[in-house]
Amino acid sequence: MRYSQLLIPTLKEVPADAQVASHVFLVRGGFMRQVAAGIYSFLPLGLRVVNKVARIVREELNRAGAQEVLLPVAVPAELWVESGRWQKYGPELLRFKDRKGKDFCVGPTHEEAIVDLVRKDVKSYRQLPVNLYQVQTKFRDEARPRAGLMRGREFTMKDAYSFHVDEADAMREYQNMYDAYVRIFDRCGLAFRAVEAATGAIGGSRSHEFQVLAETGEDAIVACDHCQYAANVELAELVREPPAPPEDGATFLPRQKVPTPGKHTVAEVTEFLRLPPQQLIKTLIYLADGKPVAVLVRGDHDVNEEKLKSALGVDELVLAGDKTVEEVTKAPVGFAGPVGLEVPVVADREVAGVANAVTGANEADQHFVNVNLARDFKVARYLDIRTAAAGDKCARCGQGTYQGYRGIEVGQVFFLGTKYSQPMGCNFLDEGGQEKPMVMGCYGIGVTRTVAAAIEQGHDANGIIWPMALAPFQVEIVSMQPNDAAVRDAAVKLHDELEARGVEVLLDDRDERAGVKLNDADLLGMPLRVVVGKKSLAGGELEVKWRRAPEVEKVKVAEAAAFLEGRIQAELARSAKPA
Amino acid sequence: MRYSQLLIPTLKEVPADAQVASHVFLVRGGFMRQVAAGIYSFLPLGLRVVNKVARIVREELNRAGAQEVLLPVAVPAELWVESGRWQKYGPELLRFKDRKGKDFCVGPTHEEAIVDLVRKDVKSYRQLPVNLYQVQTKFRDEARPRAGLMRGREFTMKDAYSFHVDEADAMREYQNMYDAYVRIFDRCGLAFRAVEAATGAIGGSRSHEFQVLAETGEDAIVACDHCQYAANVELAELVREPPAPPEDGATFLPRQKVPTPGKHTVAEVTEFLRLPPQQLIKTLIYLADGKPVAVLVRGDHDVNEEKLKSALGVDELVLAGDKTVEEVTKAPVGFAGPVGLEVPVVADREVAGVANAVTGANEADQHFVNVNLARDFKVARYLDIRTAAAGDKCARCGQGTYQGYRGIEVGQVFFLGTKYSQPMGCNFLDEGGQEKPMVMGCYGIGVTRTVAAAIEQGHDANGIIWPMALAPFQVEIVSMQPNDAAVRDAAVKLHDELEARGVEVLLDDRDERAGVKLNDADLLGMPLRVVVGKKSLAGGELEVKWRRAPEVEKVKVAEAAAFLEGRIQAELARSAKPA
Repeated sequence: MRYSQLLIPTLKEVPADAQVASHVFLVRGGFMRQVAAGIYSFLPLGLRVVNKVARIVREELNRAGAQEVLLPVAVPAELWVESGRWQKYGPELLRFKDRKGKDFCVGPTHEEAIVDLVRKDVKSYRQLPVNLYQVQTKFRDEARPRAGLMRGREFTMKDAYSFHVDEADAMREYQNMYDAYVRIFDRCGLAFRAVEAATGAIGGSRSHEFQVLAETGEDAIVACDHCQYAANVELAELVREPPAPPEDGATFLPRQKVPTPGKHTVAEVTEFLRLPPQQLIKTLIYLADGKPVAVLVRGDHDVNEEKLKSALGVDELVLAGDKTVEEVTKAPVGFAGPVGLEVPVVADREVAGVANAVTGANEADQHFVNVNLARDFKVARYLDIRTAAAGDKCARCGQGTYQGYRGIEVGQVFFLGTKYSQPMGCNFLDEGGQEKPMVMGCYGIGVTRTVAAAIEQGHDANGIIWPMALAPFQVEIVSMQPNDAAVRDAAVKLHDELEARGVEVLLDDRDERAGVKLNDADLLGMPLRVVVGKKSLAGGELEVKWRRAPEVEKVKVAEAAAFLEGRIQAELARSAKPA
Repeated sequence: MRYSQLLIPTLKEVPADAQVASHVFLVRGGFMRQVAAGIYSFLPLGLRVVNKVARIVREELNRAGAQEVLLPVAVPAELWVESGRWQKYGPELLRFKDRKGKDFCVGPTHEEAIVDLVRKDVKSYRQLPVNLYQVQTKFRDEARPRAGLMRGREFTMKDAYSFHVDEADAMREYQNMYDAYVRIFDRCGLAFRAVEAATGAIGGSRSHEFQVLAETGEDAIVACDHCQYAANVELAELVREPPAPPEDGATFLPRQKVPTPGKHTVAEVTEFLRLPPQQLIKTLIYLADGKPVAVLVRGDHDVNEEKLKSALGVDELVLAGDKTVEEVTKAPVGFAGPVGLEVPVVADREVAGVANAVTGANEADQHFVNVNLARDFKVARYLDIRTAAAGDKCARCGQGTYQGYRGIEVGQVFFLGTKYSQPMGCNFLDEGGQEKPMVMGCYGIGVTRTVAAAIEQGHDANGIIWPMALAPFQVEIVSMQPNDAAVRDAAVKLHDELEARGVEVLLDDRDERAGVKLNDADLLGMPLRVVVGKKSLAGGELEVKWRRAPEVEKVKVAEAAAFLEGRIQAELARSAKPA
C-alpha cells in the first residue's frame, strides 16, 4: 500500500487531554480521532489494528469450538428486568425509549439477550454444550472516560457465552476458554498474566482476568514469587492467621490525648508524631446496608471494599458521608477513632498486633497515643478486609512473597453458574426428562482496549513499537529520494515483491524530507523499516532496521524480500509459541 | 463443518408475523431470530451470509480505491445541528442523552461525522480526492418495521463518503462507485437494475438506486424497452408534451349532478356510473407550505408527491386532513371536485385531454358528470405531477415504452455537491491558495437487506436457493444412514477432501431420518447437495443435485471432490462476469 493513498494525518502536537502513551500516539499517528468524550473514530491505520486483534480472537474462538453470532446493539428492557439488572445497573447503562415509548438499552454486555435466544431454541441436553460469541460495538456511559481506548464509552468487545448441563462441563469450558485466551494474547505478542479476579457487575463465582503488564495499567495485581498464584488486589487473599496479639513483652503505656491541629491523613499525623504509619489504626465509617459500622485497618494498609462487603455479608456498602461521620464520632471528619464509639467496630486481623497505637480521639484536632485493644476499645469481629500488597506472604502456598504489578485488563472469563439461567428460565431437559437450569460461563475480550494495551507495553519516546501480529503493516519502506528514478524504482520493486509474498507493506512514497519520513516511521511503529537511499543503493544495498532496536543491517537488494519475509515469519512464530 | 456442531434451530412453523419469503425462511432456517420489532439476532448460518456480502463489498470498495474506517455509532447532536438535520430529521432518528445530559443520536447515516473528521484533517487539494467507507450497525426507528430484514430498525450498512476539489472529479468518483456497485451485485449473483432515483433525506442532486428485482420489492421501477433509461417511479420522467385538449370532435355535453350514495373511491364511482376510470378527474387537497391547493389527476393515474413538491417549489407538502378538506370543499371527504373551488387548482397535463369528465360535486353523496375544462372550472398551472407507469412512452428516447418492475433497493449512490461541506465548513485550499468547500458524494449498501433480497429473488416453496457467492456453505453433504460405517466414512472423507480444497462444506451428520435431513437441506438452500446413501455408494457413486434444479447426477466417489470444486468455480466465475 502507498502512503500517499492512505489517510494518515500525523500530528506533531500532543493532544491536550492525552496522558498515556497509547492515547498520545494513536492520535498523533493518525490512527484515531476523538468525536466526543470516550468516543473515537478509527482511521484506516487504526482500523487495521483493531481488525487484526479481532481476527486473532475469531480464529482462536473458532478453533476452540465457539460459534460466531451477532446479537442486536439495542436490547429490550424487558429482558433486563427479568434478570434484575435493569433495576440494579447504574447510569453506565445507556437507556433509551423508542418512538413508541418502549424501553431499551444499548447492551454493555449481552447475557440477557443470549439467554433469551438460547432458552427459546435449545431445549435438550443433546443440544448442549453450546458456546456462542460475537464481536460487537458496545457502549458504557462511563462517568470519567479517560486515557483514550483504555477506558472509552464506545468500544469493540468480543463476548462469548457458554451453556452446559452441569458445573463440571461448564468448568471444562472455562478452562478451554482460558487456554484460548492464553493463545490469543500470546499470538498478539503481549506480555500478560492471568490473575484471579472479582466478578463485579457480571456476577458469578469464579473469574480470571487477563492483564497486559504495563506501568500505566489501572489494575494493581500481585503474584507470588514462589507458586503460580496471581490475583487482582481487589480479590487477592492474605494468609488466614488468627488475630495475633502484640508481641510478647510489649508494655501497655497509659493512653494520652495529644493535640494534632489540622492533621488529618495518616501521613500527616504519623509524621507529626514521629511514628511509623503501622503504629496508627485508621478508623473508617461505612454504611453497610444503610447502618453505620466502624472499620479499622493499620495505617499502612488499605480497606478492600470488595472483601469488606463480602465479609460483612451485605448487599450495599458505601463510605459514610461527612454528616454521618460527624453524628457517629461527634467530631469533624479526620479525627475518628474506636475509643468510645457506640456503633459496631470491625477490624482487620492485623490491627490486633498493634500495641500503643495512634487513633483519632473523636474530637477536633485531637488524637490519642498509646491506645490499646481490650483496655481501650472492643472489636466485634476480626476479618480479612485489607488489600494485599507487594511484600505480603502468599496465601496460596504460604511460602512465597507477593510481587506487585500494574496491569491493563484486556480479557476476563467468568463462571456464572445459574445466575442468569435461573431467573430467566433458561432450562433444558436432561437424559431423565427432568427440567434443569443450564449452567453458564461468559468470556470477554476488550478488542479496542487490547490495541491500547499493546502500545502501553510497546513504545518509546518517538512512537509506537507494534508487535508483529498487530502492526497495521509488517514492513515500512521509506523511499528517501522519491524523485530519484533509481531510488523510486527500487522502492516500488521491493514493495511489489513483498506484496506478492503476502507481506503487508507500507511504502512511504511521499515527496517529503527524509527526516519527516523517518520520524513518521518511528511514530507509526511498523516492526521493520527498510530505508531505500541513493548512497547505499549505489552499493547494491538497502538498510533494514527493527523498530525496537537501534542497529541497522545492510541487505543486498536482490535478497531483501526473502530476508524480510523470513524475519516476519520467525517473529510471528516466536509470539505464537512463547518459551 | 459438522451440522451437529452448529446451532441451526430449524422450525416447521411459519412465524406468525412473517409475510415475505426472506422473513419466513430466515426464521424457519435458523438464520436469525427476532428480538424486538425490526430487531434481530443473527445465528451462525445467518451471520455467515451477512459476512459474505460484507466481504464482497469490502473487496470491491478497496479495489476501487476507497479506504475503510470506523466511525462511532453514537454521534454528538452538535454535528447534526450544524448540518441542519437535527432539526429536520423526524422520529426515525434515535436520539438520546448521555449521563451528563449531552444530546446524541445513533447515526442512521454518517455524513456529519465524516465531514467533521475530514474538515479537521484534510486541508489541501493535494490530499484530495479521498473516499472513506465503513461497514457498521445502523439504527433507524422505522414507524412500521416489516418483512424481516427488508425494513428493519437495526441493520448493517456499508456507507462511503467521497471528497473532491470539484464537481467533475466528484462525478468521476460517482461513476467509479457505480461501477464498483455493478461488480458487487454481479458477484453476489443477483439480478438487479441501476435506476435513476430521488435523493430523499440524504439530499444532493443526482442519484442511482441499485434494485434487486423481485415481486415483493417495495419499490416500483420503470425501464424503457428501447433505450437504457430506468428509474424509480418516484422520479421517472414523462414525455414533456404541452397539455393536449380533448380529441377533435368531442361534444361537450351539459354538466349534470348525479347521486352517488356512499361511493368514494375512483373504482366505486366509475363502476357505479359504468364509465372507465380515465373518464374521472381525481381532486386531492394538499397543504403546500401550509396553504391548501387542489391537485387534479386522471382517475387511472397517481399523484407523485416528489414531483408535485418540486413542481410547486415548496419545502413541505402533505395531504390535507379531513377538517381542511371539509373547509375547502364544504363537503365530506370523498366528494371533492374542481367546480366552484376557491383555492388554486393545479392539474397534471393529461387532465386537459378528458372531455365530459366525472368529478366530485363538493356535496355529500353527489358527483358531476360531463364536467368540461374552461367551461366549468379553471386550472392555474399544468404540471408533470403524476407517477409514471408501465405502458407510458419513454421520456428519454421518446420511442420505447416503459416496462414495470418491482425492486428491492439494496444500494444507492448520491452526488451531494456541497450540501454538507458548505454549512459545516469542510473546506480545502486549492492550488491558488483559495479556500473552497469540498464537493462530495456518498454511497450506501444495505448489507443485511441484500441478504433478504437474495432470498426474495431465490427461493421456492421448500426454502431458500442461495446464490453460490452468498450461501453459508457451498455444498451440503447429507449422510443418509449415519449409523452405517461405510456411509459415514464416505461422507466424512468427502467433507475432509472438500475442506482441503478450500470448499465450504456442511456435513449433515445428525442421527435424524433421511426425510428430515433432505427437507432441512432444501430449507437451508446450499447451492449444491450431495447425498451419500447406502445403495448408490454400493455402486461406487454419490448423488449430486443443484438446489435450483430437479435433476440428480451420479458421480463416482473418487471424482466427487474435484467435480464439486469445478462446479463451484464455474458458478462463481459466471456471476462475477455476467454475459
